Amino acid sequence: MARLFHVPLSPFCRKVRLSLAEKKIEVELVEERYWEGDADFLRRNPAAKVPVLKLDGRMMAESAAICEYLEETRPDPSLLPKTPEDRYEVRRLVGWFDDKFHHEVTAKLLYERINKKVTGQGYPDSRNVKDGARAIKYHLDYMTWLLDHRRWLAGDVMTLADFAAAAHLSSLDYISDVDWNRSSVVKDWYAKIKSRPAFRSILVDQVSGFRPPPHYADLDF
Amino acid sequence: MARLFHVPLSPFCRKVRLSLAEKKIEVELVEERYWEGDADFLRRNPAAKVPVLKLDGRMMAESAAICEYLEETRPDPSLLPKTPEDRYEVRRLVGWFDDKFHHEVTAKLLYERINKKVTGQGYPDSRNVKDGARAIKYHLDYMTWLLDHRRWLAGDVMTLADFAAAAHLSSLDYISDVDWNRSSVVKDWYAKIKSRPAFRSILVDQVSGFRPPPHYADLDF
Repeated sequence: MARLFHVPLSPFCRKVRLSLAEKKIEVELVEERYWEGDADFLRRNPAAKVPVLKLDGRMMAESAAICEYLEETRPDPSLLPKTPEDRYEVRRLVGWFDDKFHHEVTAKLLYERINKKVTGQGYPDSRNVKDGARAIKYHLDYMTWLLDHRRWLAGDVMTLADFAAAAHLSSLDYISDVDWNRSSVVKDWYAKIKSRPAFRSILVDQVSGFRPPPHYADLDF
Repeated sequence: MARLFHVPLSPFCRKVRLSLAEKKIEVELVEERYWEGDADFLRRNPAAKVPVLKLDGRMMAESAAICEYLEETRPDPSLLPKTPEDRYEVRRLVGWFDDKFHHEVTAKLLYERINKKVTGQGYPDSRNVKDGARAIKYHLDYMTWLLDHRRWLAGDVMTLADFAAAAHLSSLDYISDVDWNRSSVVKDWYAKIKSRPAFRSILVDQVSGFRPPPHYADLDF
């Protein structure tokens, strides 16, 4: 069976978990305290990051590379559209969320509030938290603009772009940092994706010392 | 003709320039002062980042998405190998350089020494510069380990992984931050890639106020 070394709230791990689940690839989840720099883990991935996926007899790292590999070896159901133009748009948006949103929002809210405490790096920097809380509004507005024109973020079918976005937002929702009242189209989009069977394992995640709000796992939030 | 909005020393722009040149796609280079948040530029790319490529009647952003699009629409010569396993390894290493190396080295040396001055953000933070100078050694050693086992970084053929790595190293070489004496296999690899016609435009780049060292453009450095 496939094995995924992960941490529950990592959006990069969640994107891979969603891809695996949507493609019905069974996986054993192993929590990895990657920040401790354990020698076994560094052998698995010299970059010392999660996710690391053991699949097809290989250890694989870098979530974007893993998702492309899953798409090439398990194309059904596909999470990338058919034409180069549509595939470009999916990858652009995956980059948007995994780079820009990650840097401006996830790192400023989730990493300040949770990762710092869990890894023993102290208290949240309030300026970062403030910056992140401001930036997420702009990103929700950008998603609203996209979803006013499209059924899913990158077009008319659900793709990896939706999983990348939902991975970040679900982790932030665990700490109540998403204002779902800001945009009804974003809320509707998230309700659709949250109700997929692939999302189930994410909704039962628990991080010791941090209890999610009641709406976190509620499909009718 | 294609048009690339770029800044000369951006490794992400350089990776795209190398891909375009290797595939013999003619391109007009337009320097973009992206940090000024010009309205025209934000229309081209709401992420406010370079590179932005105008090609096939579209404006495209995110270097990874652009490179995959070029590969899918102009597959000859190919910068990705044939099997999913080999393609995975290329994408893993592109991620290594564009995420880990970028964060640990490029941002700490190039952005401190050049971008801060050019964008009016003041002086380099000496702790960052020290951290970057320490980290690049570890990355050169990792490249040495890879190149002890392989002709090119991801295997026996030249790929996008080599271009991603060479894009970062060439920008750092412009400010004399690469110790080529540390590893003869890395130096030999760089000499090979530097002598390709695709590299020519990169070797004549000039940034006002910063003169590159004489060895920067020397193929026999």
